[in-house]
Amino acid sequence: MTTHNHKAPLFLGIDGGGSKCRAILYRDGDGILGTGLSGAANPVNGLQAAKESILDACEQALRQAQLAPGELRNCIAGAGLAGVNLPSCMAAMEAWQHPFGQFHLTTDLHIACLGAHGRQDGAIIISGTGSCGFLSVGSHQRIYGGHGFPQGDKGSGAWFGLMALQHALQASDGLAEPTAIAGELAPLLGSHEPLEWVEQMAGQRSTAFARLAAVVFRAADKQDAVAQAILAEGAGYISELGQQLLDDGAPRLALLGGLGPLLTPHLSAPIQAAMTPAQAAPEMGAVYYAQDCLGAVPQAQAQ
Amino acid sequence: MTTHNHKAPLFLGIDGGGSKCRAILYRDGDGILGTGLSGAANPVNGLQAAKESILDACEQALRQAQLAPGELRNCIAGAGLAGVNLPSCMAAMEAWQHPFGQFHLTTDLHIACLGAHGRQDGAIIISGTGSCGFLSVGSHQRIYGGHGFPQGDKGSGAWFGLMALQHALQASDGLAEPTAIAGELAPLLGSHEPLEWVEQMAGQRSTAFARLAAVVFRAADKQDAVAQAILAEGAGYISELGQQLLDDGAPRLALLGGLGPLLTPHLSAPIQAAMTPAQAAPEMGAVYYAQDCLGAVPQAQAQ
Repeated sequence: MTTHNHKAPLFLGIDGGGSKCRAILYRDGDGILGTGLSGAANPVNGLQAAKESILDACEQALRQAQLAPGELRNCIAGAGLAGVNLPSCMAAMEAWQHPFGQFHLTTDLHIACLGAHGRQDGAIIISGTGSCGFLSVGSHQRIYGGHGFPQGDKGSGAWFGLMALQHALQASDGLAEPTAIAGELAPLLGSHEPLEWVEQMAGQRSTAFARLAAVVFRAADKQDAVAQAILAEGAGYISELGQQLLDDGAPRLALLGGLGPLLTPHLSAPIQAAMTPAQAAPEMGAVYYAQDCLGAVPQAQAQ
Repeated sequence: MTTHNHKAPLFLGIDGGGSKCRAILYRDGDGILGTGLSGAANPVNGLQAAKESILDACEQALRQAQLAPGELRNCIAGAGLAGVNLPSCMAAMEAWQHPFGQFHLTTDLHIACLGAHGRQDGAIIISGTGSCGFLSVGSHQRIYGGHGFPQGDKGSGAWFGLMALQHALQASDGLAEPTAIAGELAPLLGSHEPLEWVEQMAGQRSTAFARLAAVVFRAADKQDAVAQAILAEGAGYISELGQQLLDDGAPRLALLGGLGPLLTPHLSAPIQAAMTPAQAAPEMGAVYYAQDCLGAVPQAQAQ
């Protein structure tokens, strides 16, 4: 049924985030044998749901390679998950009675960095729904930011969305400069009425605010001074974060996440110059991580 | 059993907020006959819980006056609730099959204003967990702010707490000026470790942030520049809100809410000069509201 190289071990590379989980099945020599995509896998927002998303994505990847779910026990899994930088969350996930042959767990940031720099030393900045920086140089690793919404994650989608809504609401009271942001928000929130915006956004999480981020970029393009000031503040923070990573010894820097392409032209010149494109996806970084963990163990024995 | 004046109607004045609900039983000539205190009564955070809190507080007030719960049907209730400035929330509460003789519903802001100015025209600023301004002059009413957390409520406890945490976290990354706020936060959050602060505050609501507000005032007292800048920004917003209310025609202004005494010395001189102390509590304002709604109806008939 398969033509796989049965001497080399099967790896699962798992990238679990707040909205989705990706998995790849990989074997040296054969490359990627299958992929899977499932739902949210941030254990902070639901431990059981995260485990189910991981298994769902991995079983999809096995199925694509025409392997049964029972093959999970023959796979060496590397997983990078959001949230496991929090010690209690890492402990909860490590207590998992998982079905894999081996399960090597690290942060989503670590696997993204390993992927972006093809396993070499380097640093990444992620700006998507949230924001943060991560550096991995030799045995030195450090996270900058990643403090969550609304207390952190400056320069992220959620932060830009929050700033947009804050300024538009204050302007509606005559307590801040009028801004074209209000007009850009209206179609997204289905109303021109600030009271209805408030009603719609009450109690919403970061993802709902991140959906509003684009209005800042659109209004800034139209020379709106308020939007331009927000953009300068957010991009300024991302540039400072990049400088901090370079100062901390990163030989290379990559900007990842959905906001990357929008932010890049607004970053400082030295940071733009230091940026390199990402070489591989985070789930491939997760495979690298599992391979590194396997380390000295002879491959035939490990399988 | 009672010596009440049976010709005058019984009023219940209800003040329902995000953390508690107060009720008073009142009759002209007799004054306050009983009081009650129960849990959260903001319908946005739970419609059924709000109704239960209202009934709990009112039945306590009746009990104090040695009246049975069945007497609710002989009471004219005035209620000011948080959240009912949102049309959907107002509609949901108005659909209530309430047990009162009459139930007159308005916002928590309106009854606070009626109480603070003894039923006269005026405006209030509330800074507690949230913040907002409210003006009632003749038939003109307007709310400023009150947009909720984190998109609004600048100058509120939740806003000061959020600013404190934001600045302390950025400083922990070396991405903001070091601040004495970090040292003030540590005892409140039970740790000197920013990662544990993040873990503890993840997904928390405004009340959890408001618990941190005092650290800004404490650090500012110790001449911390970051805390002083936050305080100047928050108090500056409250002063602008006050000026907006005066410009909109308010003949008098009162500052209510837990942060009032802390904020007052930091407000602008014209706003401090315009401030008058509150004359009566919001629940008394709710009685005034019910009496105003009763209006032309003869009192004997109304009962």
